[in-house]
Amino acid sequence: MEPLNPYPPRFMLNVDKLLPCHSVDCVIIGYDKGALSVLVLKWKDLPLWSLPGGFIKIDEHLDDAALRILKDRTGLDMPFLTQFHTFGQAGGKRMSVESDIRELIKSNYPSIGTWFENRFITTGYLAMVQPSECRLVPDELSESCVWMPIKDLPELIYDHNAIVDQAIAHVKRQLNYLPVGKSLLPETFTMKTFKLLYESILGRELDRANFQKKMLKLGMLTRRGKENKGGAHKAPYLYSFDHDKYQELLEKGIGFIP
Amino acid sequence: MEPLNPYPPRFMLNVDKLLPCHSVDCVIIGYDKGALSVLVLKWKDLPLWSLPGGFIKIDEHLDDAALRILKDRTGLDMPFLTQFHTFGQAGGKRMSVESDIRELIKSNYPSIGTWFENRFITTGYLAMVQPSECRLVPDELSESCVWMPIKDLPELIYDHNAIVDQAIAHVKRQLNYLPVGKSLLPETFTMKTFKLLYESILGRELDRANFQKKMLKLGMLTRRGKENKGGAHKAPYLYSFDHDKYQELLEKGIGFIP
Repeated sequence: MEPLNPYPPRFMLNVDKLLPCHSVDCVIIGYDKGALSVLVLKWKDLPLWSLPGGFIKIDEHLDDAALRILKDRTGLDMPFLTQFHTFGQAGGKRMSVESDIRELIKSNYPSIGTWFENRFITTGYLAMVQPSECRLVPDELSESCVWMPIKDLPELIYDHNAIVDQAIAHVKRQLNYLPVGKSLLPETFTMKTFKLLYESILGRELDRANFQKKMLKLGMLTRRGKENKGGAHKAPYLYSFDHDKYQELLEKGIGFIP
Repeated sequence: MEPLNPYPPRFMLNVDKLLPCHSVDCVIIGYDKGALSVLVLKWKDLPLWSLPGGFIKIDEHLDDAALRILKDRTGLDMPFLTQFHTFGQAGGKRMSVESDIRELIKSNYPSIGTWFENRFITTGYLAMVQPSECRLVPDELSESCVWMPIKDLPELIYDHNAIVDQAIAHVKRQLNYLPVGKSLLPETFTMKTFKLLYESILGRELDRANFQKKMLKLGMLTRRGKENKGGAHKAPYLYSFDHDKYQELLEKGIGFIP
């Protein structure tokens, strides 16, 4: 039987150079046209979807493994990335579909033996990126790497849907402490776009006037002129972050969540 | 050479029944006489202190390992326990003293071979308990298990001081979402005790009148009469939590942090 692809996956080349029971899964969040999206991978030849993930080298910091995986899939260096939870349920079969994956891997890469059958604990990392800045590259077992709106996510393998849910819950709880604006918005944005971002994270509508008043009062936004839309006198103002002030607010908590 | 104690440590009896590269460390916080304290272990025959910790059984949920370790050291069932961070730095020698520990273990328990020399990733759990309810039991490698005020903590092995620092930073950031009152205070308490708890977590003084006004306005406290101190007319009021209201506030964030 032909391997699924002409080159063996990097992570399987040297399983003795990897930690035997720990993996990393990345919830990479992007924001575009008023919707939060997550980066997901479609497996080759199987009707399976998963989060971008991978293993940890024996001599690699866990955080560096997450950065490496993120860079491999998106091309991004030094984006905003934070660890949010380590998932440690026991039992090899986290989902019925798992045996399909194992069979697929074992038949295509017999050299890895039973390594993949270890029990794995996985650490979830959350990244917030701008889709337009990403160069998406699938991993060796996948045929594509695409953005999917969170509310339309397909069923993912293992506990990956639960990992996404927990990432979003983390963003909600930590909204005052995470650079969601800086990471997810372009350099300049309208107040409407800014409010839509908060609404899509919180999952509810916010009052327009109250939102604008609070945000302006915090002093972290710089007004940059009007959006170029033809009829300029009716165009909304564009804003950008005063990065020093925004950083200062993030460090002590913006104290905004309404 | 005699073993340090007459029975071999449980975690070393069956290293093949344990996950090979993951451990758990618990920051167990108590509050007494206006000071936050942490539970620490003194090693036998070595001038070393460490956090309570242990390993994970092959078929055990990571969270259950933390509950087991907590119960072994304190006798507590079902206390408040939450995972706060997984520490994944690479490199075997996390501290120069580590080789002492390895020599000690290897010379006393040669059967474990090199297992203890694996690289370990450790997940930090935070527990909040009432010291008066704990029955402290050292582990097999320790001669004592004691409360130490956080501000007087000794140097701990590995990165354990950094783990404590990160646990406290987590409590500060998440103060509105953690049951610090319910977990750390007795059934009834004075407003002064309540304020001292928040002050010791935040590391700064709070205004007395403002604190009391905000806390009462939240509606989560029930007034229970005056403290029994002899001169009753001058004694302060005692309060307890309205548990349903407190729980409701915790779930959406108390929104108190001043």
